[in-house]
Amino acid sequence: MSRRVPLGSTAADLDAAIAAFVGELGDVAVVTDGDALLEFRDPYTYRESDEFDASAMVMPTSTEQVQAVVRIANEHGVPLWTFSQGRNNTYGGPAPRLRGCVLVNLRAMNRVLEIEQELAYAVVEPGVRWFDLFDALQDAGGGLWPSIPDLGWGSVVGNSLEYGIGYMPHGDHASHVCGMEVVLPDGSLLRTGMGAISGAKAWHVYPHGFGPSVEGLFKQSSLGIVTRLGVWLMPRPECYASCWVRVSGYEQLAEVVDVLRSLMLDRIVENHPMITRGLEVDADGNPYLDPMSETWHGRFALYGSADLIDAYHRVVEARLAHIDGAEVGRRNFDGDDGDGPSNHDERVQRGIPDMDFLDERLLPYGPRTGHLDFSPVGRCLGREVVELQKLVRSLYEKAGHPHVGGICLAPRSALCITTTFYDTTNQAQTERVYAAYSEMVREVARHGYVPYRTNLQNMDVVADQLDFGDHALRRLHEAIKDALDPKGVMAPGKQGVWPAGRRDR
Amino acid sequence: MSRRVPLGSTAADLDAAIAAFVGELGDVAVVTDGDALLEFRDPYTYRESDEFDASAMVMPTSTEQVQAVVRIANEHGVPLWTFSQGRNNTYGGPAPRLRGCVLVNLRAMNRVLEIEQELAYAVVEPGVRWFDLFDALQDAGGGLWPSIPDLGWGSVVGNSLEYGIGYMPHGDHASHVCGMEVVLPDGSLLRTGMGAISGAKAWHVYPHGFGPSVEGLFKQSSLGIVTRLGVWLMPRPECYASCWVRVSGYEQLAEVVDVLRSLMLDRIVENHPMITRGLEVDADGNPYLDPMSETWHGRFALYGSADLIDAYHRVVEARLAHIDGAEVGRRNFDGDDGDGPSNHDERVQRGIPDMDFLDERLLPYGPRTGHLDFSPVGRCLGREVVELQKLVRSLYEKAGHPHVGGICLAPRSALCITTTFYDTTNQAQTERVYAAYSEMVREVARHGYVPYRTNLQNMDVVADQLDFGDHALRRLHEAIKDALDPKGVMAPGKQGVWPAGRRDR
Repeated sequence: MSRRVPLGSTAADLDAAIAAFVGELGDVAVVTDGDALLEFRDPYTYRESDEFDASAMVMPTSTEQVQAVVRIANEHGVPLWTFSQGRNNTYGGPAPRLRGCVLVNLRAMNRVLEIEQELAYAVVEPGVRWFDLFDALQDAGGGLWPSIPDLGWGSVVGNSLEYGIGYMPHGDHASHVCGMEVVLPDGSLLRTGMGAISGAKAWHVYPHGFGPSVEGLFKQSSLGIVTRLGVWLMPRPECYASCWVRVSGYEQLAEVVDVLRSLMLDRIVENHPMITRGLEVDADGNPYLDPMSETWHGRFALYGSADLIDAYHRVVEARLAHIDGAEVGRRNFDGDDGDGPSNHDERVQRGIPDMDFLDERLLPYGPRTGHLDFSPVGRCLGREVVELQKLVRSLYEKAGHPHVGGICLAPRSALCITTTFYDTTNQAQTERVYAAYSEMVREVARHGYVPYRTNLQNMDVVADQLDFGDHALRRLHEAIKDALDPKGVMAPGKQGVWPAGRRDR
Repeated sequence: MSRRVPLGSTAADLDAAIAAFVGELGDVAVVTDGDALLEFRDPYTYRESDEFDASAMVMPTSTEQVQAVVRIANEHGVPLWTFSQGRNNTYGGPAPRLRGCVLVNLRAMNRVLEIEQELAYAVVEPGVRWFDLFDALQDAGGGLWPSIPDLGWGSVVGNSLEYGIGYMPHGDHASHVCGMEVVLPDGSLLRTGMGAISGAKAWHVYPHGFGPSVEGLFKQSSLGIVTRLGVWLMPRPECYASCWVRVSGYEQLAEVVDVLRSLMLDRIVENHPMITRGLEVDADGNPYLDPMSETWHGRFALYGSADLIDAYHRVVEARLAHIDGAEVGRRNFDGDDGDGPSNHDERVQRGIPDMDFLDERLLPYGPRTGHLDFSPVGRCLGREVVELQKLVRSLYEKAGHPHVGGICLAPRSALCITTTFYDTTNQAQTERVYAAYSEMVREVARHGYVPYRTNLQNMDVVADQLDFGDHALRRLHEAIKDALDPKGVMAPGKQGVWPAGRRDR
């Protein structure tokens, strides 16, 4: 199979770069075999499409090797696409936006570099998965809990940098990382914040630096490759209570959102509640999808001493009590009762990773199933959450897709997460789903909503909606991109930011 | 008096720019009179020095006027220096790093644009002072509390963008702003995060955006002028308890720090505790400085229902009880008891601004007093806080200056705030103080510590210490500066970042 040469490069460029990669990293760390690369395609695009296929893959094992890879890419003008684990399949998995990019696979950089028990943080390399971090924390005594997303196989660094969410007090992962080491597009090495001084004391504890803060530039970004990241954790509490509230209908949903917001703002509920519709469990404990259900399942957690949890729960009950028909409950666990939680909801709010969400019973087309997540960000107000739910549901109905999903709450914002399932071997269905998604992006944009991340197919579409000031944000992103990456070798097109040489895509 | 022409500009450039400012803003909004400009000098530098004097001042009243000012500055190559209120005197007040800059005084842009009661945020212009925000919130019913710094006269925007601190749950102000409108160095207008879409819903509630986050670039920054900012607030709690702990000696200080850290990490104490030494109050309530005191005064607060505060305080007492000789106390207030708090410690943790810290009884040289704050950032570990305290105190002793100060705690970091007082009409003394400061910066840098902000005189000195990766952070700051501000018209030299044309200062 001939190599897929990236737009803007020649076959000779690519061959020369690959030879140089082999020279630096060795044979086994450079993959060019077409069959071996199949595993690193966009898993949820139409199976026969090669639109997001890479030309090769390199697997550095150290920061120095990442620097060498970036220097070679510049020398030969060959673009890279980095992934940490590449497991977020709805957002393209490991696949590049631009066909023919060389993948930089960071799975082999998988060391937990530091666990600071007293200050409750860890420092990790990008290949560290949630499973790995959890295990390392358990091995260190279990005194610290991570916030985790629904699936444990992903990268802590990848998820956090992509604004991924979890459900514990640090569930806004991108806001609770602190201190990065970054390989810049010219191959040089940066340490952010207080890490900018040799022998820095406060690198992973103080979120600012001296002068403009640049950490944000490396989130959802094509401006650097993060090789080391500080991640804040919570100390194991004496007790943990998994709580739930169940209501039916939109009016009650609005009330639940408003009560949970007040509990979050008052710092009674300190984690990120999730409210779902359409994901049910039968009497035997088997999960199934029911897009027609009108039941809203809310879940949230309390942490602290047994006394405090009781006090918190009295407030919770008092505020939820006035909602018509609300069922409220909780289940208590000791903080050190590692085996206690028996289901995903209970585990994910306690930092214990699992893979339940890939349960085959939830995949309508078996292993061929793809799903496309559409997740605009709204405000955490009952009436607005309901408005956005109705809007998105109507768009799904218009497109003929069943609608299931959830609402992940923060004290002020609400992420409206919805999913469409389809058969990735069915070209017509797959294309219809992606076209409907683009239309949904445009329609919610008319109402002032933007998805918090998106698939490869729609990065340009979402970026196009950000029109304020004649697309001022795009011009700023591009100006910085051109200044730092004049040859455009890092992740061209990521989040709709294209380098100068590839801007007329 | 002839105008002070800024380095890199000509007198003709400056005259032409001033004429254009008058054309856009009108006569009364452009100040060139030398006497009128005296008020906007660095108040704590040697009185006779003109090193940080401006050439003129413009006073825009709208974002459009700020844009016009920036465009004129570009057209004529005349550098600007922006201040919101310019009240942080220890950091130069309103004065520019580069002599002869035109001051952009934003005090007239002083509207509270929005108060969102349900979502607990406000949107303010840069001229809004803490007093103004507090008043506006009171007028709106008092249901929301701001986090405030020690002096109420400063700008909310200015303090927050400069990484200023307060003492309430949102006391890390820079981490609790959300959504900016920014005039870029080319005069164009940017809205950050979700504000990048017209009619944005989630601008001031969701802290990230689509693609790389750029908000950090506008903190301690010369990359833009922020004309509008979202600021997160806390809902008024049912009750508030002002708490304190008093110990003597370093060993006990270390224990207090460790206990307070555990209480913060466990989210019992949710504000930012402050521990001071050398600031005393006599029996009649008069404050005085006592640099020889070995007593550490810790203060912190609890918020919630009366029940919850009692439960929290039981944990607080249990953990502080084992510290030898510790005196512990608290005073309770109803959340809506606006007149309750009778002293600064109680008010500042409840969001009520005052001016107590400018009490003339604390100024050893009367109105001629200057003070220089030196505030390196460390980790919130008892033993390291003591180490840093001892190091800084030894540097003060070496320089022959009395040492007073405080430690502002966050769950993981500790800001070591110290102050030197001197007579700004005494040239020798003033110069000695600044020279000692520079030496302190270099000495703590050898131990891995960096001040979180600094005076005009030492911006280059601090930036010089950030040496990791052959000064990688400086090169990144400069690359972005040159890309966004090729003519170097915005705040040249701020935090040691100089534009290309003025880099060989």
